[in-house]
Amino acid sequence: MKLFVNLHPQILIPEQMKFTARQIAEMLQGQVDGNPDATVWSLARIEEGAPGCISFLANPKYTPFIYSTASSIVIVNQQFIPEKTVSATLIRVADAYIAFGKLLELYNQIKLNKTGISEKSSVAETASIGAKVYIGDFASIGDHVVIGDNVKIYPHVYLGDNVRIGDNSILFSGVKVYSDNVIGKSCTLHSGVVIGADGFGFAPQSDQAYSKLPQIGNVVIEDQVEIGANTTIDRATLGSTIIRKGVKLDNLIQIAHNVQVGENTVIAAQTGVSGSTHIGANCMIGGQAGVVGHIQIADGVKIAAQSGIGNTVSQPGAILQGSPAFDLGKYQRSYVVYRKLPDLARQIAELEKRVKELENS
Amino acid sequence: MKLFVNLHPQILIPEQMKFTARQIAEMLQGQVDGNPDATVWSLARIEEGAPGCISFLANPKYTPFIYSTASSIVIVNQQFIPEKTVSATLIRVADAYIAFGKLLELYNQIKLNKTGISEKSSVAETASIGAKVYIGDFASIGDHVVIGDNVKIYPHVYLGDNVRIGDNSILFSGVKVYSDNVIGKSCTLHSGVVIGADGFGFAPQSDQAYSKLPQIGNVVIEDQVEIGANTTIDRATLGSTIIRKGVKLDNLIQIAHNVQVGENTVIAAQTGVSGSTHIGANCMIGGQAGVVGHIQIADGVKIAAQSGIGNTVSQPGAILQGSPAFDLGKYQRSYVVYRKLPDLARQIAELEKRVKELENS
Amino acid sequence: MKLFVNLHPQILIPEQMKFTARQIAEMLQGQVDGNPDATVWSLARIEEGAPGCISFLANPKYTPFIYSTASSIVIVNQQFIPEKTVSATLIRVADAYIAFGKLLELYNQIKLNKTGISEKSSVAETASIGAKVYIGDFASIGDHVVIGDNVKIYPHVYLGDNVRIGDNSILFSGVKVYSDNVIGKSCTLHSGVVIGADGFGFAPQSDQAYSKLPQIGNVVIEDQVEIGANTTIDRATLGSTIIRKGVKLDNLIQIAHNVQVGENTVIAAQTGVSGSTHIGANCMIGGQAGVVGHIQIADGVKIAAQSGIGNTVSQPGAILQGSPAFDLGKYQRSYVVYRKLPDLARQIAELEKRVKELENS
Repeated sequence: MKLFVNLHPQILIPEQMKFTARQIAEMLQGQVDGNPDATVWSLARIEEGAPGCISFLANPKYTPFIYSTASSIVIVNQQFIPEKTVSATLIRVADAYIAFGKLLELYNQIKLNKTGISEKSSVAETASIGAKVYIGDFASIGDHVVIGDNVKIYPHVYLGDNVRIGDNSILFSGVKVYSDNVIGKSCTLHSGVVIGADGFGFAPQSDQAYSKLPQIGNVVIEDQVEIGANTTIDRATLGSTIIRKGVKLDNLIQIAHNVQVGENTVIAAQTGVSGSTHIGANCMIGGQAGVVGHIQIADGVKIAAQSGIGNTVSQPGAILQGSPAFDLGKYQRSYVVYRKLPDLARQIAELEKRVKELENS
Repeated sequence: MKLFVNLHPQILIPEQMKFTARQIAEMLQGQVDGNPDATVWSLARIEEGAPGCISFLANPKYTPFIYSTASSIVIVNQQFIPEKTVSATLIRVADAYIAFGKLLELYNQIKLNKTGISEKSSVAETASIGAKVYIGDFASIGDHVVIGDNVKIYPHVYLGDNVRIGDNSILFSGVKVYSDNVIGKSCTLHSGVVIGADGFGFAPQSDQAYSKLPQIGNVVIEDQVEIGANTTIDRATLGSTIIRKGVKLDNLIQIAHNVQVGENTVIAAQTGVSGSTHIGANCMIGGQAGVVGHIQIADGVKIAAQSGIGNTVSQPGAILQGSPAFDLGKYQRSYVVYRKLPDLARQIAELEKRVKELENS
Repeated sequence: MKLFVNLHPQILIPEQMKFTARQIAEMLQGQVDGNPDATVWSLARIEEGAPGCISFLANPKYTPFIYSTASSIVIVNQQFIPEKTVSATLIRVADAYIAFGKLLELYNQIKLNKTGISEKSSVAETASIGAKVYIGDFASIGDHVVIGDNVKIYPHVYLGDNVRIGDNSILFSGVKVYSDNVIGKSCTLHSGVVIGADGFGFAPQSDQAYSKLPQIGNVVIEDQVEIGANTTIDRATLGSTIIRKGVKLDNLIQIAHNVQVGENTVIAAQTGVSGSTHIGANCMIGGQAGVVGHIQIADGVKIAAQSGIGNTVSQPGAILQGSPAFDLGKYQRSYVVYRKLPDLARQIAELEKRVKELENS
């Protein structure tokens, strides 16, 4: 069964992807108020509705939009009484917000319901593949790889030898996992993610050239981790780079060799963490921040975007800004003064002059 | 016909890629002055010429180089009269600068003249493919994809279900477009670009873990947009992330969910724009800048490299610097004082002392 | 022969990847002290040992760990005399540190010992392939490509027409090299690297739209260069973007068109270098730094992380910080004052008041 696979009105909709108000009311255990054959193939906010879309009304603030929306169907609360004519077909349910959430979930399940192993993929004979796995075109699965149940491997994914992927994980098109790395259960890795490239380790030689330090550790990603597009996580020199359970990483982040990121820590896009640094649990790190190597960051620390952390942060829950960063409140008070530094300089020059006059008088 | 496909003298040149002065003069409607069989396979600046290269001389400032250049052929203006011996063969044209520009265009056309659908690609039966399309090895084209005329899809490109690509667009090797996204006409997407990965949306739960907010919107890229290598543009939570006509994005840029970038805005490398922010038309944003979420930036705003925009910018044409950013001129005047802050601090301590002496006298 | 291909204890180990103390002692010309059949399949630090791991003890500081390590085998110096019971099997060698280094090297050689051309790759008939080359699944090798001896091309690599790859280079999965680019000998390019995408060159037109400047130059990467995951190096407009011998680039770096990076210069992650800038030899550039276009940076310059270089640096060995950057020592002294700017402002206001009182007295 396919539902709502199309999002954008510009997209041509094959017949089997359209659903009627009657069918949706059945799924949501609601009642149709209007045309039961009204047909939709997309979801939209009520204020951005278009023919073929289904929307919802839960927050009374948005009630005016129900009289003007171009959406074909609107899910409303059971007790909703229109004050003017509504052209959309209504589906009445116990809780419109929850019902729409259910539709979103269904939509995502259906969109990600791919199964089967493409004949155009390459799976090593020594690999072990779980039940209900999807492996897309041109995916390359190395020797001794172990893939759990319900895993989705999109086209052009590369899994080097000995990689392990836990149950229910999704690797979108073009994810590259070097050999020996371990991905947990229910993880999502977006396109362009690179797991386990060599850490940046070089030793200077006498002739100013550098010799490479072998990087033979790996990366361990625990369960329920999400990793954004084109983010890179380097393998450890020895041992493991570890991303703990529930961590969420945005796009284009750099995690260097031997770093550890604690449970449920969230890091925004384009941030970089240097080698061997350990970040605590439940931290929130803004975008484009940088963290130097070989330091510890306590649990619950918050770091403002574009900040640079140059030293161990041992106080749990500290809130930091600046490059190098210090207490956010203090940073911002300093910045207020920074903005009027030319005035300050003038004031000092003026004082200098007046003091001189006083001294000479 | 192939022309100038090789750039670098180190590259072995197959016979059919070499062109004589006579052939080039015909294309440019010029006259040969020297050896009509002089042969070239590459283009170079006159001061960096090498045997096998063709160069041009338009700016008189560069005239001295024509006597020493190692290029085999030089395009010159009709009226050029050498004052010393020139070893290169000359091709005289009405306007040497325009003629060389024509060669560059021809070169690019030829380099990008690939056509045909590789037998090693995977194209869904339900996909609709325009005329004169190139689809390279191992490209994977999903269900209900619509590809316009003259589109070039290089090897390892992934187009998820329902993607649409407008006429004359080029997707270089390894571009990944998730399902339901829309690319306009005459767009260029460079290798490693990821369009439509999930926005970074998570709701904190009571146990400090995060639950994922379904991201079911899409990305709409209008016509004549160029997107640099490894740049990522996330899909909208609901609705569309929109990149307007004529936008130029450099490499390694992050555009978050529900962002809109206005017409002809140009953004330099490694800049990040957070969720739901709307950027106006004709803006210029420097490299490594950051823009917070949920703000508006007016038309024609200029933002210096490495700046951080923390609030709505409502003044069209504002020029900003700093993190957080304010007026560039003011920022730079503050920075002048910043550089001599230790002097200022000393001066204040000195004043303090002198005032104390005055008070005690 | 395979050795130590598995790193992580969670990974299932096929029989042929296990090695006994006896076998390893033979390789290292050492003597077994303990169980000669003790079996290992991974390497670990002595303090992080696990059953199935081999560790080493060279630094006396770590001696206490030999009595508690869970590693199955430990390499020790010939003269080592335990003071308590050691459960691990020992292998005695002349120099434990050097012997372990030899194992690391062997490990890496074995891990990267792939050879042969996959039937699932696509190699143009006009390409020239050296001896002992590995070409993985779904690699796409264009016309007139020249690949040297012992080169490893992992799955999903794309080499456009006329690309040249020198002997002993490794291109990991998903590297994309546009046409006409040149990679030297003994280079390592990690996954997601993009070589030779178009430089970011556009000319404004009268209608505020931009027209693209053809980018027909290339990229030349000299020998012994390592390039980190998802780093992008743009082709030159004309001529070549050049990365000199021995340069080491970390992940997610942007190198723009016509840039030159001098020999043995090292650049940390997420740094960006703008168009036509020339960086000297033996420089060290920190992470997330930015360098503007069209400037020169002298040899041996050091740039702190997150700094912005706005002007030519002509002094060799200069050490810089800040955005825009100046002398690191001076920057840090200014930053010390920045942190107490609110105190300074208060002090000035106070002085103002006291001077006024003096004037009025």
